[in-house]
Amino acid sequence: MRAVDIITKKRDGGTLTREEIDFFVQGFTRGEIADYQAAAWAMAVYWRGMTNEETTALTLAMAHSGEILDLTPIAPRVFDKHSSGGVGDKTTLVVAPLVASLGLPVGKMSGRGLGFSGGTLDKLEAIPGFRADLDTEEFLTQLHDHGIVVSGQTHDLAPADGKFYALRDVTGTVSSLPLIASSIMSKKIAAGAHIIVLDVKVGRGAFMKTEAEATALAELMVQIGHGVGRRVAAVISDMNQPLGNAVGNALEVIEALETLKGRGPADFVEHCLAVAAEMLLLAGAARDDTDARARLNAALADGRALQKFGAWIDAQARADHIVADYSLTPRAKIVDDDDYTILPHAHIVETIAAPRTGFIAGIDAEEVGLTVVDLGGGRAKKGDAIDHAVGVVFARKVGARVTRGEPLFTLHANDRAQFDAARTRLLAAVEFSASAPPPLALIHKVIR
Amino acid sequence: MRAVDIITKKRDGGTLTREEIDFFVQGFTRGEIADYQAAAWAMAVYWRGMTNEETTALTLAMAHSGEILDLTPIAPRVFDKHSSGGVGDKTTLVVAPLVASLGLPVGKMSGRGLGFSGGTLDKLEAIPGFRADLDTEEFLTQLHDHGIVVSGQTHDLAPADGKFYALRDVTGTVSSLPLIASSIMSKKIAAGAHIIVLDVKVGRGAFMKTEAEATALAELMVQIGHGVGRRVAAVISDMNQPLGNAVGNALEVIEALETLKGRGPADFVEHCLAVAAEMLLLAGAARDDTDARARLNAALADGRALQKFGAWIDAQARADHIVADYSLTPRAKIVDDDDYTILPHAHIVETIAAPRTGFIAGIDAEEVGLTVVDLGGGRAKKGDAIDHAVGVVFARKVGARVTRGEPLFTLHANDRAQFDAARTRLLAAVEFSASAPPPLALIHKVIR
Repeated sequence: MRAVDIITKKRDGGTLTREEIDFFVQGFTRGEIADYQAAAWAMAVYWRGMTNEETTALTLAMAHSGEILDLTPIAPRVFDKHSSGGVGDKTTLVVAPLVASLGLPVGKMSGRGLGFSGGTLDKLEAIPGFRADLDTEEFLTQLHDHGIVVSGQTHDLAPADGKFYALRDVTGTVSSLPLIASSIMSKKIAAGAHIIVLDVKVGRGAFMKTEAEATALAELMVQIGHGVGRRVAAVISDMNQPLGNAVGNALEVIEALETLKGRGPADFVEHCLAVAAEMLLLAGAARDDTDARARLNAALADGRALQKFGAWIDAQARADHIVADYSLTPRAKIVDDDDYTILPHAHIVETIAAPRTGFIAGIDAEEVGLTVVDLGGGRAKKGDAIDHAVGVVFARKVGARVTRGEPLFTLHANDRAQFDAARTRLLAAVEFSASAPPPLALIHKVIR
Repeated sequence: MRAVDIITKKRDGGTLTREEIDFFVQGFTRGEIADYQAAAWAMAVYWRGMTNEETTALTLAMAHSGEILDLTPIAPRVFDKHSSGGVGDKTTLVVAPLVASLGLPVGKMSGRGLGFSGGTLDKLEAIPGFRADLDTEEFLTQLHDHGIVVSGQTHDLAPADGKFYALRDVTGTVSSLPLIASSIMSKKIAAGAHIIVLDVKVGRGAFMKTEAEATALAELMVQIGHGVGRRVAAVISDMNQPLGNAVGNALEVIEALETLKGRGPADFVEHCLAVAAEMLLLAGAARDDTDARARLNAALADGRALQKFGAWIDAQARADHIVADYSLTPRAKIVDDDDYTILPHAHIVETIAAPRTGFIAGIDAEEVGLTVVDLGGGRAKKGDAIDHAVGVVFARKVGARVTRGEPLFTLHANDRAQFDAARTRLLAAVEFSASAPPPLALIHKVIR
């Protein structure tokens, strides 16, 4: 078998066998197939696509390029969720403790933000002392003891995917459906969870811009999951405007805590319930959607979910007092306790008024995400440092009627020039209309 | 400008600007653009194609990646011919001295054979002492003094093309029309000739299998040439059966000498006249095709062409006695002269009889080429050593009626097992029919 023949076969629209895909992935991982051959192959796949069988074979080949975590000795069913990436998406911070508080263990390996899209680990690291670098032993122990753990990859999950993704990033071959689906699913499969809910975002602040693209990706990933014996469902959710009100790491931790206390923004609460309900339904832990929501709402109302969040943060950060006190004024000054730390706070916090009266017709999520990156709250490129304090909290969302001079958003920055630039960009990102805009769907569809 | 954006633009079917193509070629040549990016780009070009303007820009960018030879101080018009590669194609060995004998200087940089296709330099190196590695000074001096020179590249012509071709070879991106055309023309332009006739082969023993493909390639190369101010024409010639009777390096030198002496095989003679006539017409050195052929036939008949061949070989090999004596029996043994060398001769030379009576309906040129490679007469991969003595001489060609037991071909080999394998393959490569087959066209068309 020769790499060039496999490239040529795909170039000419052929269907690769499992053996050919294994040969290519293994050869590439071991460095026997050159990166320029993998790049040409990726472009041929971008062009010709892949059948579901090819994509499943690619996923498995990449998953098996490294260790596959076996969580079954810890619990017979471990839950995971995965977001395709959005703006203001702090869903894991609510859904993980919410589901775990019902006795369903959540073991999730998460990623960092890049570009307009935030990352769960970055948000969690806004919590002082949070450890995102658990080793496999610590990951398994915390999952066993607390039924909840969210960490960076505890080991080199699907190393072929990591190597291949880096190559795709610089060769114009990222936005290929089978390559995206196999990249995500190879890591999910290697991370070991039995039950997985995929949150596929669609819209201006998502990688998938149309519902058709998002649906195709979701269906493909669900089929791959089924093909390898995992229980998988996908929620197609809207990402035209930011999710919830807050965008920025510490600000999103606060919004998650408020949500766990029953005071979350309506759209974000509904999103969390939809994702969590799918997890319960996949597990057979609820009769139907109504039953699932009743169980989830009870865990929110009676404080179980909040308590689980506290136990989680205590285990991973030893800073569970932030559950009770996430004031951004440095109360540390009045508490005489060296261990008493608070969430990072920005030095410039100002509320910006609506420039006109009318309905909010749109808030460009991608532009909001990029603005927060430029404030220092995200990364333009891998490895950039993050300012966890900065961000924006919207007072009103799409569909609201605002009067000129009313608060529109509150901006948190640590630099005056950056603040001014962000204010201008955010004002431009909000679109007004004279009449009420058509409502934005929140959950477009669910694929099971 | 970023490489990934140029890849993405082509991937999405865009038309690249001259600046973008220059940036990419220069960056790749200098090693600033990685080979995996060039590989992805090549696959995108394979997929999306290029406009004539893009292909011309790519050709010029590659030509200018190294030195461009200026032949004008030597002669105001220097001639070159280029074959797209075939089996039994010793055309240069006849056309170069034939045209040069009419006072039209021929300065050609030639290549070596690879796969089924032979190379002019390999054929010339069958001549004892032939030097194919002239430096630029020697190339120019010989062109000035003798009006004829054929050498390997005297310097690193179009280094970007060399680097790019090596990459295409292992990434399934060779057979792309704009990439083939720009690769050929970048070297032709860098080699400095003013008047170029392209001999584009079509058929079973050519890289272009259909007349439509060959025509498209020829038209593209002619347009590129015109676009950069060279006089260029292309002859589309048949390569379904081998050209002439001989395939194999020393055997083809002999056939070229026989042709220069007026005893060449009809198809090869006609092919040489067609190519040479185009060169005269492009230069305005003949009124029309009839006039051109009259001049060429005169130079063959009165020995001027043969004399020029002798002067050429004397200049480059100091072995011009092979013009008079190319017997394959080692006459050196009876001539007491250390400088008296002969063409290499094979130890096993046997004539194979026709296995049946009938018309020859086809001789699979590619299979003949590959058989000679396996005899040692060509290269399976770059750098392989060549046995110049081996090969085959057909007694009859397509259209001939043969009687069982009549000579069909003579096989020259240096190994009995190889001989046996070659005999079997060659017999299988000859197709017989009961009735006369439709005649094979020799020159399909000329593109000016």
